[in-house]
Amino acid sequence: MSVLIVGSTALDSIRTPKAQNPRLLGGSASHAAVAASFFAPVKLVGIVGEDFPRNYITLYKKHKIDLEGLQIAPGKTFHWSGEYEVNMNNRRTLETELGVFETFTPRLPQSYRQSHFVLLANIAPSLQHHVLDQMSRPKLVVADTMDLWLNIALPDLLKLLRRVDGFVLNESEAQQLTQEHNLVKAARKIHKLGPKYVIVKKGEHGAILSANGKLFVAPAFPLECVIDPTGAGDSFVGGMMGYLSTAKGSIESNLRRSMIYGSVVASFCCEGFGLNATTKVTKQKIQKRVSELEKLVRF
Amino acid sequence: MSVLIVGSTALDSIRTPKAQNPRLLGGSASHAAVAASFFAPVKLVGIVGEDFPRNYITLYKKHKIDLEGLQIAPGKTFHWSGEYEVNMNNRRTLETELGVFETFTPRLPQSYRQSHFVLLANIAPSLQHHVLDQMSRPKLVVADTMDLWLNIALPDLLKLLRRVDGFVLNESEAQQLTQEHNLVKAARKIHKLGPKYVIVKKGEHGAILSANGKLFVAPAFPLECVIDPTGAGDSFVGGMMGYLSTAKGSIESNLRRSMIYGSVVASFCCEGFGLNATTKVTKQKIQKRVSELEKLVRF
Repeated sequence: MSVLIVGSTALDSIRTPKAQNPRLLGGSASHAAVAASFFAPVKLVGIVGEDFPRNYITLYKKHKIDLEGLQIAPGKTFHWSGEYEVNMNNRRTLETELGVFETFTPRLPQSYRQSHFVLLANIAPSLQHHVLDQMSRPKLVVADTMDLWLNIALPDLLKLLRRVDGFVLNESEAQQLTQEHNLVKAARKIHKLGPKYVIVKKGEHGAILSANGKLFVAPAFPLECVIDPTGAGDSFVGGMMGYLSTAKGSIESNLRRSMIYGSVVASFCCEGFGLNATTKVTKQKIQKRVSELEKLVRF
Repeated sequence: MSVLIVGSTALDSIRTPKAQNPRLLGGSASHAAVAASFFAPVKLVGIVGEDFPRNYITLYKKHKIDLEGLQIAPGKTFHWSGEYEVNMNNRRTLETELGVFETFTPRLPQSYRQSHFVLLANIAPSLQHHVLDQMSRPKLVVADTMDLWLNIALPDLLKLLRRVDGFVLNESEAQQLTQEHNLVKAARKIHKLGPKYVIVKKGEHGAILSANGKLFVAPAFPLECVIDPTGAGDSFVGGMMGYLSTAKGSIESNLRRSMIYGSVVASFCCEGFGLNATTKVTKQKIQKRVSELEKLVRF
């Protein structure tokens, strides 16, 4: 089954201590869509400006991503520039130019509205709402977010949490949202806000799933060389949703394994700038790392 | 087989945002010895002053810890006081009074010298050396350390690394020692300094073992309530060595599982001040959490 993904479609200019790369293909929806495309057909909802490079459209198409829901509007594409320190857990935003995103209203083509798997990748909660408003009853809705929305759009986000099955967020965001440092307690508080499945991303330390009163501790794939972690979280959730949409059996029986697949796609994402490494991945390479992860945690 | 453990035997005064507890039984050797005692007989090497409370001796004895190597010297017991923030990853030392530790020379009783399993818990590297100097060829020597020794006794520590089979250290210490932020690369650099087994502790994020070119990612037991994390790392390595010394089969075939047992004992340690929670543990409770951990990582 296909996965509908809404989120940001952006140009990212990224500086690390070792290199500098302007105007890469980025954004939460781009990363999540490419990640999901290894498992399932993807329907993308987003907006870009007239300056959006033609070869990025080609790249989406190479991954068989349905672009009927991608608006091309007069104006400039959303542009983010950021800088990483040697410790890549620390990054700072240098500049954010909203461009066409300022007036974006997601419009779902008719063919998108019956999608069973919906990923509301990181974007303003009001836009995530707007996508859900246009859908028939999906089988699984998962939302991601970022600290910005906790700061400036909390009421919208809280309303959204009552409409989603799964919620994915960073450790620090979980702590901020719940005012609770302990992640087990934080997850329990988030369940009370609505979502049945709570996934807390911990970057290089993996992720934790809380569902039905049980926890799952998912490892991250240990990498020897991290080039650019931008989009790793989006790749994680994209890979996860892609895997879930095609796995046999119930969602609950596949959730843990879907996180492992998400982790693996995220690991590839970190090994290149922007989507450079992710787009070179194959199903076979993913399967190999999943097998390696299985061995890495066995005792 | 018994485990010989040398390290600090101290009184800890600990403040957290919720409570304050003066003069608890603490020190790396105390935590490691109690943790190891659930699996194997322990021979303790350390020093305390004449002010050392009688009931702490009783507590060691309750855990059948051999105290022939514990010197009781004129003067005061080593005293550490520290304070934790709400985020318990952040703590600061308020005061350190070395007391009898200032002139400590570990002397091994004859009955200790043939021990096959030796844990050089956190203490000055020169003292760790001094213990090894008095031993016949042990089957397994594992050393722990702390940032202080990297700062003030690096040459001693580097010499020690050529004499040990295993080395256990925190993530930040591994980064400091190797000048390498990436843990996979850091572990490889540490192997080159001597140890065959490198274990990097990541606190609530678990630990990583590097051995024979392979990695093992050990989860931490997710806790809902952390009362006082002091000694968790010592409990981890103590539980690990205790388990290893009695497990059937080769050391390498038991290393991964030993870390899981260490993780579990460390989780109990965090649930009470000082050794309060650890001393209430039973083999059965440990086994139950090990089984829970097995389920927590299964996918």
